[in-house]
Amino acid sequence: MDFRIICTDPTSGGRLGALRTAHGEAQTPAFMPVGTQATVKALIPEEVWEIGARIILCNTYHLYLRPGAELIERAGGLHRFMNWQGTILTDSGGYQVLSLGHLRKLTEEGVRFRSHIDGSSHLFTPELCVEVQEKLGSDLLMPLDICLSLPASRRAVEDASSRTTRWARRGKEYHQDKPGALFGIIQGGIYSDLRLASLEQLEEIGFAGLAIGGLSVGEEKEAMLETLARLLPAMPPSKPRYLMGMSAPSALVRSVALGVDLFDCVLPTRLGRNGTVYCQRGKINIDNARFRDDFSPIDETCDCYVCRNYSRAYLRHLFTSKEMLGGRLLSYHNLRFMEHLMEQIRQALREGSFPAFLATFEATYKEASINV
Amino acid sequence: MDFRIICTDPTSGGRLGALRTAHGEAQTPAFMPVGTQATVKALIPEEVWEIGARIILCNTYHLYLRPGAELIERAGGLHRFMNWQGTILTDSGGYQVLSLGHLRKLTEEGVRFRSHIDGSSHLFTPELCVEVQEKLGSDLLMPLDICLSLPASRRAVEDASSRTTRWARRGKEYHQDKPGALFGIIQGGIYSDLRLASLEQLEEIGFAGLAIGGLSVGEEKEAMLETLARLLPAMPPSKPRYLMGMSAPSALVRSVALGVDLFDCVLPTRLGRNGTVYCQRGKINIDNARFRDDFSPIDETCDCYVCRNYSRAYLRHLFTSKEMLGGRLLSYHNLRFMEHLMEQIRQALREGSFPAFLATFEATYKEASINV
Repeated sequence: MDFRIICTDPTSGGRLGALRTAHGEAQTPAFMPVGTQATVKALIPEEVWEIGARIILCNTYHLYLRPGAELIERAGGLHRFMNWQGTILTDSGGYQVLSLGHLRKLTEEGVRFRSHIDGSSHLFTPELCVEVQEKLGSDLLMPLDICLSLPASRRAVEDASSRTTRWARRGKEYHQDKPGALFGIIQGGIYSDLRLASLEQLEEIGFAGLAIGGLSVGEEKEAMLETLARLLPAMPPSKPRYLMGMSAPSALVRSVALGVDLFDCVLPTRLGRNGTVYCQRGKINIDNARFRDDFSPIDETCDCYVCRNYSRAYLRHLFTSKEMLGGRLLSYHNLRFMEHLMEQIRQALREGSFPAFLATFEATYKEASINV
Repeated sequence: MDFRIICTDPTSGGRLGALRTAHGEAQTPAFMPVGTQATVKALIPEEVWEIGARIILCNTYHLYLRPGAELIERAGGLHRFMNWQGTILTDSGGYQVLSLGHLRKLTEEGVRFRSHIDGSSHLFTPELCVEVQEKLGSDLLMPLDICLSLPASRRAVEDASSRTTRWARRGKEYHQDKPGALFGIIQGGIYSDLRLASLEQLEEIGFAGLAIGGLSVGEEKEAMLETLARLLPAMPPSKPRYLMGMSAPSALVRSVALGVDLFDCVLPTRLGRNGTVYCQRGKINIDNARFRDDFSPIDETCDCYVCRNYSRAYLRHLFTSKEMLGGRLLSYHNLRFMEHLMEQIRQALREGSFPAFLATFEATYKEASINV
């Protein structure tokens, strides 16, 4: 992996970068669509590429359980298995083990849990976690971490954070210099001193990039941004910074201003399947009766295939008729909205107009669902 | 509408034709994918076109109930509403009224029924049926007919058939020479004399094309083919002949040999969503455990996007993981299989090798599910 900064915004922590792996280059800040089970739900890889994504995220826990890392390895790796030519980042599965696994038991050795699919028993260790991602042929690997829901006690956060760091070391020792770039995951909840300690320990071990885990998991948005504001200036500028699982557009642009390079979240596709779509001024629900005979596109300012070819009335018809094409088209639009947002951010950083972009965006886009 | 015969097979009733409407030309014999609710399930119109389809079928009953013909008319017609540039054939809705409508009451005036969606009461008359299709902007319209399930008594079939013809006359009187070509629907079950009488009466009224309804509704395949064999020679060669709702490949090729020009059926997409796919030698179920680590395509001889890019193992993974992309890709393949079959049929007719094609196909393809 190679990461370089192209330019920085002098008024904020924002930076334009380029991240290169064996599967091509992605400009950052970048939003990574989530392909949990080796598919960005409802879309083919060519569409995900056309939308503008160059990195997607797949899920180690899900793929380990089904269809299994060995099978994907025999298929020629995850890229070939799912037909994606770009970069793949695999998350560690730590979050899923803790949220989906049954009867889980956390020890220093690892996490023992039962599969949410068939109840089979598994021990996920830091070594196995990295081994699975190596078999998948991932470009960007995450070590096994412990992601707590917030609020959590300082003691619990401290324990989870320090164990995450010990596991990261074991992951690094297992991975050595095999193909694929292993990140470290900074934990520490909203305790800035714990975050900084986590960062320092991970930097001692030495990772190709740094992920920020354990945010956007129940805390207030302002607490999250404040945590980022204290953490990011201490992070080495030369390494990519990945804020895990966060996609609310308003928090995303502010995180960019603080210096985050990579984002991912299931929300654009999940919201799409549930009929909620992003517009320039906020989200709307296509199911609303007022769209019944609205023959305008989802968003007049959007350049996507869906907005060029279909009306809100048609999309509402698909949604109310429970037609699969509805979820597919709304997912496509929402992902294009996110990628288009990232393109605008990168252009503003390139042209030195990021502060103006930020001000305009914050004046225009509202997180609450709107009536358009 | 303009229909011309390009050439005929001297050894059978098979014929190569071209059907032109305001929305372009389709070579026949043609298979029409079904887009019941103004969407060929899971696919975008560009894919349906790429697969090779030039005519799709939409459903008058479904669109009349939801979102309503007036709404589609205000949207600029069905083509624009759903973004399909080719020809649209709309079926009459008679079959759906009888199979889906609740508390239906059949009188000479029409069919009174309650909506399967919201229980609302509706009276569908032959005039309304044509009016709805005119509002949709259909290219090929079907009059309201009565489609009985077989077996049925000769008396019941005779009554349904003669009422269908009276309704066809009312439909014709309503439609006059407005845009769109109105077909007549031949009924008569497997009673050849009733079929021939139905044909004669429809020909007296005069329709642009002739549909054959009430087959593939429970009778034996041989009885269906025998009925066709007696009916088709009596049909005027100059008009397109549409066999409604039949898609079993083995019966389809034999129907072509008897002189049928148009086919439709929901099966290719429905089977796809349920994990069953067409191969050169027959159908397979992708869910089968033996495909778990089968890294070959669905069908080595298929040229489709799915077979060029995905393995059976991946498609099985999508299906067992209940991923929407599975139904989408399997539907795509199955429709391409049907369209490719039609292309082979047309090429054989063009090159004078239809008998050889027929013999090879019948020796290769088996209707029962196979182990490949």
